[in-house]
Amino acid sequence: MSYISELGERAKKAKSVLASASGETRNKALYEIAKALRENAEKIIEANRIDVEKGKENGLTPSLIDRLSLDEGRIEGMAKGAEDIIALADPIGRAVGGATRPNGLRIEKVSVPLGVIGVIYEARPNVTADAAALCIKSGNAVILRGGKEAINSNLAIAGVMREAVKKAGLPEDVICFVEDTSRDSAKELMRLNGYVDVLIPRGGAGLIKSVVENSSVPVIETGAGNCHIYIDETADAKMAADIVFNAKTSRPSVCNACESLVIHSAALERVLPGVCEKLREKNVEIRGDERAANTVEGIIPATDEDWGKEYLDYIISVKTVDSVEEAIEHINRYSTGHSESIITCDFASAMKFQQQVDSAAVYVNASTRFTDGGEFGFGAEIGISTQKLHARGPLGLSELTSQKYIISGSGQIR
Amino acid sequence: MSYISELGERAKKAKSVLASASGETRNKALYEIAKALRENAEKIIEANRIDVEKGKENGLTPSLIDRLSLDEGRIEGMAKGAEDIIALADPIGRAVGGATRPNGLRIEKVSVPLGVIGVIYEARPNVTADAAALCIKSGNAVILRGGKEAINSNLAIAGVMREAVKKAGLPEDVICFVEDTSRDSAKELMRLNGYVDVLIPRGGAGLIKSVVENSSVPVIETGAGNCHIYIDETADAKMAADIVFNAKTSRPSVCNACESLVIHSAALERVLPGVCEKLREKNVEIRGDERAANTVEGIIPATDEDWGKEYLDYIISVKTVDSVEEAIEHINRYSTGHSESIITCDFASAMKFQQQVDSAAVYVNASTRFTDGGEFGFGAEIGISTQKLHARGPLGLSELTSQKYIISGSGQIR
Repeated sequence: MSYISELGERAKKAKSVLASASGETRNKALYEIAKALRENAEKIIEANRIDVEKGKENGLTPSLIDRLSLDEGRIEGMAKGAEDIIALADPIGRAVGGATRPNGLRIEKVSVPLGVIGVIYEARPNVTADAAALCIKSGNAVILRGGKEAINSNLAIAGVMREAVKKAGLPEDVICFVEDTSRDSAKELMRLNGYVDVLIPRGGAGLIKSVVENSSVPVIETGAGNCHIYIDETADAKMAADIVFNAKTSRPSVCNACESLVIHSAALERVLPGVCEKLREKNVEIRGDERAANTVEGIIPATDEDWGKEYLDYIISVKTVDSVEEAIEHINRYSTGHSESIITCDFASAMKFQQQVDSAAVYVNASTRFTDGGEFGFGAEIGISTQKLHARGPLGLSELTSQKYIISGSGQIR
Repeated sequence: MSYISELGERAKKAKSVLASASGETRNKALYEIAKALRENAEKIIEANRIDVEKGKENGLTPSLIDRLSLDEGRIEGMAKGAEDIIALADPIGRAVGGATRPNGLRIEKVSVPLGVIGVIYEARPNVTADAAALCIKSGNAVILRGGKEAINSNLAIAGVMREAVKKAGLPEDVICFVEDTSRDSAKELMRLNGYVDVLIPRGGAGLIKSVVENSSVPVIETGAGNCHIYIDETADAKMAADIVFNAKTSRPSVCNACESLVIHSAALERVLPGVCEKLREKNVEIRGDERAANTVEGIIPATDEDWGKEYLDYIISVKTVDSVEEAIEHINRYSTGHSESIITCDFASAMKFQQQVDSAAVYVNASTRFTDGGEFGFGAEIGISTQKLHARGPLGLSELTSQKYIISGSGQIR
């Protein structure tokens, strides 16, 4: 039996125990995790130092080094994250439907854990703690497979958490960690049907694509956000500038940041100059089509490639259209189905946009940056789904559950 | 552009029109489909005759020929099926959640179509009509890829339906049919990310396995049912015999039929003889472990292979256990996660069994044969999911939908 199959076997055994554990026990495990993370902060930071040094030797970019680095504050953040999850409602065992049938059979539909969740991620060690905490709260065993850049940090965090869950009376294998960071270990995990119930990739577009293409295990596709804001003919000019500025510049590296502006030709003269002026406060590079470039000076000509691009940077594209219908068509063609917003004063345009734009979150007069488990009131999230199967948008605790039909009879036959 | 990509492109265009169509229009399409199937029954039967003749030439088994064959009655069944779906509640546009956030953002979660559903199936031409009708009702465009044995029948049915939906004002491409029945066409369909939102395989274990292993498009795994009935120490002997008889013999070829009996050692003498006597009325072959074989004469010794087998035939295995815990462990090890039942008078055993058996439908004192969209009150089903992602158990109209967040603001930024 290979190393990965063996991990699968261990997680599968642990999931049965966890699935039968009370919400109280699961919360106790989270409490112990938070406590242990704090108590072992120094040890974790020491392990992290090795990763950071190696990363610098290997020439990782400063932003990658930043994602990789842990300090007291970040470890406190992970501990606090686990504690915050304790307070959330138990997603398991809820009655979510049911009926008594004419033949007297009583059918209940209840929420149950998914089982074993595999998480494949990159250089952020905090994912190790965050993902494990969400999985435990939702009664799922987890197999964590982080990037090689963070291996020492991850090993330390996972080790601390595994010890902690034992104190709550749960088997340590409810948190399994893949120590082998080769590509083969990830590929094998992607084909571990029968052990892994769901895989959630967290990271860049390349990682996600690889998981989607190579997995036979069901996947929840997360992440890539080529988010659009459409400025309608009747848009309020100041609101448009404020929202675009916020959506583009408040955190350009995240998936709900705005990447492309679509603007009604009748709003070009009135609205675009103010939007561009505001964006230039943060030196945003603006790439536009001909009509946009003719309206505001300094707009760089966009190519067709720009429409499909997720810059994750201080760059934005501008596409001019002649109607809300054309805007919707453009967006549905180039969007990744994450988040889009319309800025308008017209009720019918707003209705049409919200109905016809085929994305997880469709806004009127608000920033795309709100697509987030916390902002939606879920308390926490494990990612943002851009697929339609199972869950769409922020993945909170409910999205980490499945269902089961419990049927009670008195001898019914068919 | 390949033939399959082109079909994908056509379906994708049609899905947008369909997603915006009212429930009334979708119902009109179903009405036109039912009407057209009836009016063209003769033409369809003629096309079917070619398939049946070829099938006989190619030595298809009588049961396959039966599945393939159409007559007036079966076509009336397809037409009636489409009509019955008209009466069901519209699964699209339902408010399924939402809240107003502290910052005033109003979030609504509404049900929307999945988009384009691919259905890969085998020799049953009625799937062509049934699947298309369910997809249209739920606002989804469909790409149908049936087996080569039924190609002429399927072409005739799909052609008739495509004409019919036009009469309701919908593009004919809401129903796309793959005329190329090569393995390559199926494989290409499995990797048509960006066009196909979900694939549903319908057929035997081999087909399902191939789709699960080869698809990069999200899949809903359906079908295989190694269903167990556990006879507890306190089971009512007559109820046990009646339920096992029903679950095994009422239709042995379907996925919710019982394949394996698990029995408490303390119930062997009291209950097993009656169960076996009843099963022998229909000449069911009984393969048991040593204790079972020592209890009732004529039980053939089972091998370990029997425990994991879905016979789909007049055969059943019998495994003896010493406790409900051991029964649960055995079932969770060998089951395909479809349907299991406990026969018991003991409340605590019933509770434990329902909580700990990890299957889509877990029964107390009832036949496993009830796991079915119709029996659950869904009106219709497109299959029975044995996976945990997205949907578990019978797939009704609700299970053919996704969700979307519609968010309304007044200038909120983050």
